[in-house]
Amino acid sequence: MRQLFFLLCLLALTSTVFGQSVTQKEANEINKTFKNQEKAWNKGDLEGFMNSYWESDSLKFIGKNGITYGYNATLDRYKKSYPDTETMGKLSFDILSMEKLGKKHIFVVGKWYLKREAKEDVGGHFTLVWKKINGKWVIVSDHSS
Amino acid sequence: MRQLFFLLCLLALTSTVFGQSVTQKEANEINKTFKNQEKAWNKGDLEGFMNSYWESDSLKFIGKNGITYGYNATLDRYKKSYPDTETMGKLSFDILSMEKLGKKHIFVVGKWYLKREAKEDVGGHFTLVWKKINGKWVIVSDHSS
Repeated sequence: MRQLFFLLCLLALTSTVFGQSVTQKEANEINKTFKNQEKAWNKGDLEGFMNSYWESDSLKFIGKNGITYGYNATLDRYKKSYPDTETMGKLSFDILSMEKLGKKHIFVVGKWYLKREAKEDVGGHFTLVWKKINGKWVIVSDHSS
Repeated sequence: MRQLFFLLCLLALTSTVFGQSVTQKEANEINKTFKNQEKAWNKGDLEGFMNSYWESDSLKFIGKNGITYGYNATLDRYKKSYPDTETMGKLSFDILSMEKLGKKHIFVVGKWYLKREAKEDVGGHFTLVWKKINGKWVIVSDHSS
């Protein structure tokens, strides 16, 4: 019992000291998710694109029209804003920085760009809060402008 | 020595378990800082307004024209965007949520509004990452749109 407690304490201490920077494994996981998002978007698959978002009513999406709460409302918003593959265009991300906030969150700053044929290209910046939930990194807050 | 180590471990363990929600004291500190920002802005004092930002080249400000790095560049950007009290108008914040990320970061979502006489009112949303640095909560990343 005493040894178990000691082990728990040691675990907490080491994760407090060493848990504050993004590991290569974490960066790879998140970069892979961004790649999957690009692929899904570029196939016109918004549900697939949304795979990396937290499937929760507490998900926050902040865009030019204000704040949207929840996974379903965010998916609906994407469907309304991007009704067809022409409007969706080809998405590419450019990741500028990735920073660990505590042990369970990663803050990512980057750029998004939509190359389109029939319409004007659009793009901007995003700030994302990722959280590790049930062993998987998911976006819990997305501010895109 | 062994007792000191035990104490350190206990501290790490309790802060791991209990350090994940915004305390009343922390919320009060941050709300007070927002109030001070409104006051400074409404006196036309941009340096005073910037008091709550991290005085570092690593400060990030993301606005409609992209990303600005560093305290000085962010202050310059404010000075250029808001050259006089007429353009600045009267600022008010509306805080929508405050969330602890790990032990040292707080994520704040809110609305900003500038009531102006000679020009049209403007407003939008912001997402802020606050970090406790040298005992003071400061904004290390501001995305305003």
